[in-house]
Amino acid sequence: MHRSPLSRILLSVCGAGVLVLGACKSSGSQGSGSAAALDTQGLLLPTEGMWLFTQPPRELLAKQGFQITDEWLEHVQKSCVRFPGGSGSFVSADGLVMTNHHVGRGSIDKLSTAERNLMEHGFYATTREAELKCQDLELMCLMKIEDVTASVHAAASRDMDQAVAEGARKSAITALTDEAKRRTGLDCEVVTLYQGARYHMYQYKRFTDVRLVFAPEEGIAFFGGDPDNFEYPRYNLDCTFFRVYEGGAPYRPEHYLKWSRSGARENELVFVAGHPGRTQRMFTVDHLRHLRDMRYPKTLASLWRREVQLKNFSDRGDEYARIAKDTFFGVQNSRKAITGELSTLFDPAVMQSKERAERQLIEFVEADPLRRSKWGDGWDLVSGGADRASDLYTRYQAMGAANLGWGSRLMSIAVTLVRGADERPKPSTSRLPEYADSDLARIERQLTSKAPIYEALEINALECRLLQLGEWLGGDDPFTVAALGGKSPRARAEQLVRGSKLFDPAERKRLWDGGKAAVDASDEPLLALVKALDARSRAARRTWENEVESPLKAGYAKIAEAKFAAYGESVYPDATFTLRLSFGRTTGYPEADAMIAPFTNFAGLYKRWEERHKVDPFDLPQRWIERRDKIDGGTPFNFVCTADIIGGNSGSPTFNAAGEIVGLIFDGNIHGLGGDTAYTDAQARATSVDSRGMIEAFRKVYDAQALVDELSAR
Amino acid sequence: MHRSPLSRILLSVCGAGVLVLGACKSSGSQGSGSAAALDTQGLLLPTEGMWLFTQPPRELLAKQGFQITDEWLEHVQKSCVRFPGGSGSFVSADGLVMTNHHVGRGSIDKLSTAERNLMEHGFYATTREAELKCQDLELMCLMKIEDVTASVHAAASRDMDQAVAEGARKSAITALTDEAKRRTGLDCEVVTLYQGARYHMYQYKRFTDVRLVFAPEEGIAFFGGDPDNFEYPRYNLDCTFFRVYEGGAPYRPEHYLKWSRSGARENELVFVAGHPGRTQRMFTVDHLRHLRDMRYPKTLASLWRREVQLKNFSDRGDEYARIAKDTFFGVQNSRKAITGELSTLFDPAVMQSKERAERQLIEFVEADPLRRSKWGDGWDLVSGGADRASDLYTRYQAMGAANLGWGSRLMSIAVTLVRGADERPKPSTSRLPEYADSDLARIERQLTSKAPIYEALEINALECRLLQLGEWLGGDDPFTVAALGGKSPRARAEQLVRGSKLFDPAERKRLWDGGKAAVDASDEPLLALVKALDARSRAARRTWENEVESPLKAGYAKIAEAKFAAYGESVYPDATFTLRLSFGRTTGYPEADAMIAPFTNFAGLYKRWEERHKVDPFDLPQRWIERRDKIDGGTPFNFVCTADIIGGNSGSPTFNAAGEIVGLIFDGNIHGLGGDTAYTDAQARATSVDSRGMIEAFRKVYDAQALVDELSAR
Repeated sequence: MHRSPLSRILLSVCGAGVLVLGACKSSGSQGSGSAAALDTQGLLLPTEGMWLFTQPPRELLAKQGFQITDEWLEHVQKSCVRFPGGSGSFVSADGLVMTNHHVGRGSIDKLSTAERNLMEHGFYATTREAELKCQDLELMCLMKIEDVTASVHAAASRDMDQAVAEGARKSAITALTDEAKRRTGLDCEVVTLYQGARYHMYQYKRFTDVRLVFAPEEGIAFFGGDPDNFEYPRYNLDCTFFRVYEGGAPYRPEHYLKWSRSGARENELVFVAGHPGRTQRMFTVDHLRHLRDMRYPKTLASLWRREVQLKNFSDRGDEYARIAKDTFFGVQNSRKAITGELSTLFDPAVMQSKERAERQLIEFVEADPLRRSKWGDGWDLVSGGADRASDLYTRYQAMGAANLGWGSRLMSIAVTLVRGADERPKPSTSRLPEYADSDLARIERQLTSKAPIYEALEINALECRLLQLGEWLGGDDPFTVAALGGKSPRARAEQLVRGSKLFDPAERKRLWDGGKAAVDASDEPLLALVKALDARSRAARRTWENEVESPLKAGYAKIAEAKFAAYGESVYPDATFTLRLSFGRTTGYPEADAMIAPFTNFAGLYKRWEERHKVDPFDLPQRWIERRDKIDGGTPFNFVCTADIIGGNSGSPTFNAAGEIVGLIFDGNIHGLGGDTAYTDAQARATSVDSRGMIEAFRKVYDAQALVDELSAR
Repeated sequence: MHRSPLSRILLSVCGAGVLVLGACKSSGSQGSGSAAALDTQGLLLPTEGMWLFTQPPRELLAKQGFQITDEWLEHVQKSCVRFPGGSGSFVSADGLVMTNHHVGRGSIDKLSTAERNLMEHGFYATTREAELKCQDLELMCLMKIEDVTASVHAAASRDMDQAVAEGARKSAITALTDEAKRRTGLDCEVVTLYQGARYHMYQYKRFTDVRLVFAPEEGIAFFGGDPDNFEYPRYNLDCTFFRVYEGGAPYRPEHYLKWSRSGARENELVFVAGHPGRTQRMFTVDHLRHLRDMRYPKTLASLWRREVQLKNFSDRGDEYARIAKDTFFGVQNSRKAITGELSTLFDPAVMQSKERAERQLIEFVEADPLRRSKWGDGWDLVSGGADRASDLYTRYQAMGAANLGWGSRLMSIAVTLVRGADERPKPSTSRLPEYADSDLARIERQLTSKAPIYEALEINALECRLLQLGEWLGGDDPFTVAALGGKSPRARAEQLVRGSKLFDPAERKRLWDGGKAAVDASDEPLLALVKALDARSRAARRTWENEVESPLKAGYAKIAEAKFAAYGESVYPDATFTLRLSFGRTTGYPEADAMIAPFTNFAGLYKRWEERHKVDPFDLPQRWIERRDKIDGGTPFNFVCTADIIGGNSGSPTFNAAGEIVGLIFDGNIHGLGGDTAYTDAQARATSVDSRGMIEAFRKVYDAQALVDELSAR
């Protein structure tokens, strides 16, 4: 699924904002457990849900004829890894990891140069020695989950002001995280589930030595490009294989997924385990209206402008296109996803179904005075927060409240240096949460990454953002004036980038290590810019947190408690870019007047190549043209299933009941783009590369016998 | 210049809005004449200005060594024609008309089908019989100009309310126009000059039988596509030739421009006569701030979204790309132009120069109590109007106040039918001005045009606009709700377009002829939609006219009078898409570290083709590849000069002091994109196809000897 960059892009376009919801006012755990007052009949479709590994859908799966066991769950959980913005899995005893090409593309790109273009020509290491070490790729494997709900809830009392309570919970979370990291040596992260009705501590083993083993040419990984993205039928070898090393030797994982010998049949029950990034299925109708009328339109406007600007940038020449491609691709992808989400919210049927479900829950609350007094104002709190969000959104975004990085690598680095210098002298629990002790090592690794930074792309990004500031705030707004520093956007961007020493990792390290004294002594223009803007930026962020996030969290905590009381744990929580289990059937769907078959094959690939005139983005790599006759045209290449996935699931393994790989999630069709707010199974489908198609390609096109052998080992 | 679609696009994106400024409160003609109180020293650059033919820049031209005569002026004036959105000129005794390919592309497109793609393959009629009659192309030749300032000013008195006065002037203009049309038989149009300090009646001979003679392939007309548009050096054969017929025979114009035998030399004085669409050089600093912070950003946001949407539409297949190409091109073009204009307003140097000039004029007014009492509040009136414009702009645009057509041909037709039925029973002077008697014949011709309307493109345009309505107004706004009619944007667009009978010119004619009774009796879904929206749309338009246009007009009338008093007629009026004379020198300019030479040649074309890998939009038509060796690589192909031009000048002849064609304006470079608000000559240049390059191509590539002979006849 080409939605994995979505979460990354969204975070940079939208800031953290209302995406991070959670916390609840009560210190108990209202309405938890299995004693549901209402059943979920009519609320859940047969293969719906992104389920927690600690709370699997035993009953729903039993209805599908599958009895889930704890051993099965542990095996799957520990076979999975999280990529930045995506998913992956261990697929051999020697630490081989499978993910999508588009999940790996950032790393592949950083290993490429104008002379060695791995994106265009692909890569295959025939020996271990030939594997290429990635600049700064890190993978995470989830080892353990602890429920810390009680500790977080205990940090805030019912009589606290919302913002104070929220601050107390944030401090508690930071302290718990730091403590767990010290205790376990693992990377720890508190995950807010059910809008704060539950907090879980996820503990990860982190891998920092990751090497590229195999990547196909982008031409076949992303065959059909933007026109075919989110469409079906598809014909894409959207896979990449890395190998994890530890202590200089291949890592031997305790668990990994074996390759299926036979692949998936039509209508088979299949599973997907991965990291769906974000859903908003619990959002109230008023909150969805805010998304529809403010947040999505504003986000889209940013994406349209950036897409056009990057297209122009790329049109300047081959090298421009190469350095912009990764960003351009992510923007196109997000634009398509958000367009789908927005269209869904304009579909009266979707809004009506949301209104019905909301009415049912409100009636349940209103039917009892105690429930009403505890939770009755939850919806008003959310509406109030959403209204403030509509008022504040433009300024909040413009001032880059959560992330002042402006889509520029250099600017992001400057923000990290300035804020890091200000924050680190404070106790960990009093800092901006992204500078807590548990994050410092990661920040330092990112700061010192040797990944190339391109001057032309940096100037372009900054110029665009400076111009956008004027549009958002007005040309005479003090923030805009400070940002422009008396220059035109273009001249200012050139001055900042051409005068910057932050291209040099050693200089970044020096400034980080030197702290505030080094930052203040530096004549770096980007540091001066960030210092000029940061007070206003932080103030906008505080306003947003207090006036938008706090009431939203308080409101959703109440609604979540009410929902728990009504339905118990028979509902799944919204996605949080943490490990989830989905499942579905490999089945086609109706489209216009025809049925779309679930499987495609290689014959279909060559047919589409011909009917689209073999030109970009439908041109095939030379190797695929030469080897055409060797390939068995009937071999399955891609397939769809009804599993409930979303951006972040890119790279997830698709496997059968025996835990064997039958595919690799890489996309969802266009009908699933509203999955953000509602799952449907009439036409929405998740798209995988077929395991049989991968083997056929490795054998016939890439002569990658060693890779085939490693995957086939039992 | 690929800016001619700009005016068309701007009008559809922005409505009429503040583009139509004018009118003044006094009934006299304050400060007119030659007795200037201040001189224009420092206000005008040596080759600045888009001059009226009734007020040519005699002194500036004398400084360039040229003495202009009335005969010369009349000859040039009557050799020029106006195209929809662009310019052109008679270039033979047999009514041959020269313009740009991109000005003619709408007509060429309408003559194309999936089987006969004239855009791709070009066209050359070797005989008169083979010339193709255009569907609905009309050309206008300016025959006479009358000053009607006194009559218009007399219609309103000083004590009238602004809006009442404005209404009175509009009625007077309609009455004057209708009367002049009856009297002369010519097409008449009152042009508001100097923001209403002058009103001129322009009288045109209209030509409705226009036939296509020669069009090159789009591949060479628009070689380099969007990446090279507004850039220089350029290599484009952006020309098209039509022939005007009258009574079934070629028209024999009284005046036409002969072809120069030798072409232009470097640094030669050359002239451009054409129809610059719109400038805003008189705008106050506060008004420019409104453009910078509201109007341009909103317009750009519309253009970005439409560009992305049309790109996706085009990516669906070859036929989609063909039918969308014209619209897509126009959108890209406008986006680039407005980006340039916006960037200019963010350049502190430009704003500072505007502030200086404004201060000089305000000081002149404030220095004298009488002046102050007459004109002193002009700037405040403009600021007030601009502030209201910022408040109202989004709703005004969303409700399509001046033009509810939504970028859809069918919707535009439905608006014309509904409003036409409502307006025609009223006296001509009481109607919406676009339905005055003098416009009815044109409307009827457009309504009955057989030009194809494409279902898929119509659905796309309507879906996009319906979605945009939600963003602009919110999904629950009554206007949005009425527009969507309880459906999702996509479903609504499909229902409206698939259910429409307005594809059929006969049905359109029937509804137009049948008036209100026929419109009310019809079950056409688009008519029902327009009827449901029109009251709100008209109300939004009235609010805009009263609260924005009236104070702006009143304010600018005062400022214009003050400016007249200060500088007399030694300044040129803002562009109004009427005939103007510009002039300049064929000279290069500095860019980064190098000088850009003024002329390119055919060798450069083939070099660029190769360095851009010969792929779209840098691929050449087959004929150009085959004939490469026949062409003299040293022949000049394109050149630049300092003449002051803007969108609407596309297709203007470039000629020497003897009135001989040396080129054909088709673009301006990127440095000239701020020409909307300020002329500069440091780097800004107008770009022409060289007359010698055209002849070389006609001979060597197209074997078009008859065309060469006709152009070369003396």
